[in-house]
Formats: sequence, structure tokens, C-alpha cells
Amino acid sequence: MLKEVDELLQGSRRALARLLTKVENHEADIALAELFPHTGKAWVIGITGSPGTGKSSLVNALAQAYRIHGKTVAIVAVDPTSPFTGGAILGDRIRMRDLSGDSGVFIRSMATRGSLGGLARTTRDAVRVLDAAGYDIVLVETVGAGQSEVEIVRIANTTLVIEAPGLGDDVQAIKAGILEIADILVVNKADRIGANQTVRALKNMLELGHSTKQDHAVAHHGRMMVVQASENNAPDEYWLPPVLQTVAIENTGIPELLDAIDQHRTYRTKTGLASSIEVRTIEDELVQRLRETLLERFMNDLDPQRMQMLIQQIQQRHIDPQSAIQQLITQNNTSIVKD
Amino acid sequence: MLKEVDELLQGSRRALARLLTKVENHEADIALAELFPHTGKAWVIGITGSPGTGKSSLVNALAQAYRIHGKTVAIVAVDPTSPFTGGAILGDRIRMRDLSGDSGVFIRSMATRGSLGGLARTTRDAVRVLDAAGYDIVLVETVGAGQSEVEIVRIANTTLVIEAPGLGDDVQAIKAGILEIADILVVNKADRIGANQTVRALKNMLELGHSTKQDHAVAHHGRMMVVQASENNAPDEYWLPPVLQTVAIENTGIPELLDAIDQHRTYRTKTGLASSIEVRTIEDELVQRLRETLLERFMNDLDPQRMQMLIQQIQQRHIDPQSAIQQLITQNNTSIVKD
Repeated sequence: MLKEVDELLQGSRRALARLLTKVENHEADIALAELFPHTGKAWVIGITGSPGTGKSSLVNALAQAYRIHGKTVAIVAVDPTSPFTGGAILGDRIRMRDLSGDSGVFIRSMATRGSLGGLARTTRDAVRVLDAAGYDIVLVETVGAGQSEVEIVRIANTTLVIEAPGLGDDVQAIKAGILEIADILVVNKADRIGANQTVRALKNMLELGHSTKQDHAVAHHGRMMVVQASENNAPDEYWLPPVLQTVAIENTGIPELLDAIDQHRTYRTKTGLASSIEVRTIEDELVQRLRETLLERFMNDLDPQRMQMLIQQIQQRHIDPQSAIQQLITQNNTSIVKD
Repeated sequence: MLKEVDELLQGSRRALARLLTKVENHEADIALAELFPHTGKAWVIGITGSPGTGKSSLVNALAQAYRIHGKTVAIVAVDPTSPFTGGAILGDRIRMRDLSGDSGVFIRSMATRGSLGGLARTTRDAVRVLDAAGYDIVLVETVGAGQSEVEIVRIANTTLVIEAPGLGDDVQAIKAGILEIADILVVNKADRIGANQTVRALKNMLELGHSTKQDHAVAHHGRMMVVQASENNAPDEYWLPPVLQTVAIENTGIPELLDAIDQHRTYRTKTGLASSIEVRTIEDELVQRLRETLLERFMNDLDPQRMQMLIQQIQQRHIDPQSAIQQLITQNNTSIVKD
């Protein structure tokens, strides 16, 4: 076993920090394989929302609340829209003040290097390292637009979508994709004018969304969990995302938020959803790794001059890209069989 | 040759519309291969900017201006943030009023299906179809955040980034990634208060960006093109993106914008940059196609039960994902050689 992995499992924060840097640089393959057996214990909470919703303060309040309950907490702040994670770093400063010196808390901002897909992968691997390090709760905080949020919070067991009153039109614009990923909706800064209106708007959108999917559930929308009579013994419970109100900087509504997260965890575990979501995540990962590994192996076997020639032929419109690929693959397969 | 491709090359708008639908559904592989020899003639202009910048009106004004110059124009409107391309459809309505009935104009909104990568690919293929159909100018209009814009406008020969006065903080937030892709910056709605301030802010950011990359060029920032003495005969010209002001709905500044686009086209063609950018685009496409094709072939050869078993073993932490992939690939290669 790598020394660093061993130290990580013994609780070394320095080893943890070093491994996360390696994850960011995509140099942690062996370590990730070695620590994998120690993963799968943390509950991963994704937190997403536009700038101005007070997301960082909420993450801060959540972390403190979990600490009071005796849970250890890791925070991963990811900002796919900024190469310098400006928001995340600012958020860290606030958090440092409240959480620093507590060995049960670990905070990390992820730099955004390379593609969006790369960022989702880096986040997944970072969460895995923190999971193996023994943190009970991993909070993944991200800001972004549509696709990026969706990809990054895909790894979360519970996803919170944060709103704030008075962000107006943006709420409408952002909802389409975001509502689908929300397990719990939080209207933060709920002491501001318009909070009730925002809550109502979100509830309406939720009901609209659910009524198309699940008529029966809507009739019970006052309850968070709807138990249904089912004819075919399928998992017969539905989670209707609750809409909660918080004022994070005053800790208002935070205990209720923790309760909601707990209920969601119970729901996911009891229905077996937690396990089937894990299967889907593993499948995604395998396909993604296969895609990269197959390409890497193929490129290693490939004569770079052959590639350059083909590119030239394509540029001169002597061959189209698809036919070029077919040629390349056929030739390479032949040479593999010959070897 | 496919009948549709033949009709497309003869100028049939109906064949064009049908092929674009096939492109959206990823069913146009054969057609794309067949029409590829007829591509590479259009100048592709990417136009990106936040909502509220009047982007659609600007695209509209640009299209009309090109028509006056006798050029045929195709418009592709892509909105990666909305599954229904609300903005694009609204924009289309405005455009329809001004441009409908003109057979030298073709307008298409792209629905966003599947992943961001999928959208970039669909856009690329749609542009290729329009290019083969003979349109002189293809305008690709997109709104989105960071990564999405960057991926979609990667195919453009000239990229315009649109701003408007008074969008305030957003300008700062969006600039980091966006400035890198801008060939020309346009402050639209320049009759509004704060236009000069926005222009100044953009120029400052541009100079900051360039001074780190290219000290010499900054000293000449009053000119758009900076010719340098160079010791190693490398292409010795630099393009410093100009910042133009327009009021699209009144056609103010549009002729100047057309001039700037022309100058950029001349610059790219003269320096050979147009060609080397095309090489990079082809290379990207080959790698992406290889990645998908190799995966597809591998999955076709794979026993689904084998995959399910591995997923289960991973979930039980008996094997890590990387080792699982190595196993899969080794077994599959062996079976290929055996066949």
C-alpha cells in the first residue's frame, strides 16, 4: 500500500491534502484504487444555487450543525464557471473563521482545470478520498449553469438546491434543469421580502413537474413522503422535494434542514434507491473510464504520422472524418491481431 | 449519393430542413460523409453573450447587412441552458418578421438533447450541412455559461462576444473564460447610459490579458492589428480584439462590425491561422469520434452479464473501478485475437 494511503487511513490531514492535490493533477490512480475498499460510508450532500443565494453561509451553517451532532464534515467547493473559484475562496475565508481549528472539519476548494467532464471526475475522486478518510458527511458545493451543476451533483446522495427571494427572472430561467436534480429546495435569506412568494413559486413548479410524472403524489403534496398503494410491488414511495426556509447566517431553519436531509437519507436507504443510484454511478464511471482507456491504448499504438496525413486529407476534403476513423480502426485492429 | 444530399446540393430548402432534423437525432452519418467534400467554404461566425445584451437583434441586423452585400446567410440558434431554447425561439419570431420570404436566409433553432458534448457535436454537424448547402455566412448564436459557450463557438472562424451597458457584476464574472474566445467584442445597446464605461472596462481587461501574453502588442493597442519584428520568422502578427459599439435595432455600428469581421477574416486567412485552426478542429473531431467508436465496438463485443457482475463486485468493494476496467479490456482483447 502507498505510504500516503496508509497515512490517510490513519487520519493524517497532511496525507489527505497531498492526495487531493494528486487527484486534481490526475496523478492519484494507484492511490484511488487502494483506498476504494474504504469508501461508501460517507453521506454526500450536493449543494447548488446561483451566486447571491448565500450558498456558502448555508454550507457553513450545515457543517457547524453536523459538528454539534458529533459528525465529521468535509467540504468540497467547486466553481465550474471561474478558473480561480473566486466565490469558493471567499466562502472559504468566511468558513475558516468559524470552522478553523476544528479537526473534525476539512475544507477544500477545487481548481477547475480542463474540461467540465474532467471537473466532474476530479470532484468524484476527491469525494472518494474524503470518504475513505472517514468523514461522515461530505458537502459538495457548486455554482454553475445547468449542465455543470447537474454533472457535478450526480455523485451526491442528497442534493440541495438553494434559492433566495428577489432573484426574479433567474429563478424561472434556472428551474427547468435544476428542479429535476433537487431532493430538497431551500429558500435562504428567508427574512427578506418576497420569501413566501419564492416558496410558492417553487412549490408550484414542483407540483407541475410531479403532476406530469405522478398524479397521485400531487394530491398528497402536503406531506413530504407519499406512500402509495401499488399493484405490482414496485418501490411504492415517492419523494416530493420539500421547500424549506432558512436564514443561514442566523442559523434559522438549519435544524429543520438537517431533519429533512435525514429523512431523505432514510427514504433512499429504505427504498433501496441509495443502492440503485450507486449502481448507476458505478456504471457511468466504468463507461467513462472505458472510453478514456480505450482511446489511450489506441493512440499509443497509432503512428502519429498516419494521423497527421489523415488530417491533411480531411482538410483537403479527400476523405470525410467518419471514413477516416473507420480506416484507422480497421488498420489498427489488423496490426493487433498480427502481433 | 443519398437523394436528400443530392437535393441539398441542388439548393432544396426542404432537403436542408430534413437533414438538419436528422443531424439533431444523430441519424445523419451517411449524409454527413457524403456532403463533407462540399464543405469548408462558409465563414462561420459565433455570437455569444448573456441574456439581455440584445444578441438576437444583433444577429438579425448582421444577417440583413450581409444580405445587402449579396451574401447568403444561415442562422443557427443554440441555447444550452434551456431545453426548449426559449430565447432562441423568441429571437426567431423577431427575425421571421424581418427576414422571412428571403430565400437567401435560412434560420434554425437547435433543440438541446443530451449532453453538452452532444450539443457541440450537433451544432458542428448542422454548420457543416449549411456550409454544404452553399450559405456564404453561417451565424451560430449561443447563450450559456463558460464551458458551454466555449465548446460551441470552437467551430467558429470569427467569434463575437456581446455585452450591454449596465449588466454590472455579471460582466466581471463572465469575462475570465469569455475574453479568451472573443475575436471581436461588441457593446450593444450603446445608446444606454454606461456604454462608454463598459467599453473602457472591456478594453482594460483585454489589455491586462494581452500584457501578460504579449507585452509588445499592448504598446500598440490603439491599432487592431499589430505587426511585430520577429527573430524567428514565426507568424508575426497579433490580433487585438477590437471593442465596437452598436445599437442593433437601429442598425447603428453594423457596417463597422461587418468591416471588423472582414478584417479578422483577412487576418486569419493571411497568417495561415484559419488553416491551422481547421487542423485543430479536425483533430478534435477525430479524437472525439475515435473515443465514441472504440467504446461502441467494445460494448458490442461485451457480455452484459459480465458488466453487471463487475458492477456488483465494485459496489461490494471487492474490486476498484480501474482494476475492473483493466480486467474487461484484457479479456476482450484476448477474445478478439482468438476469433
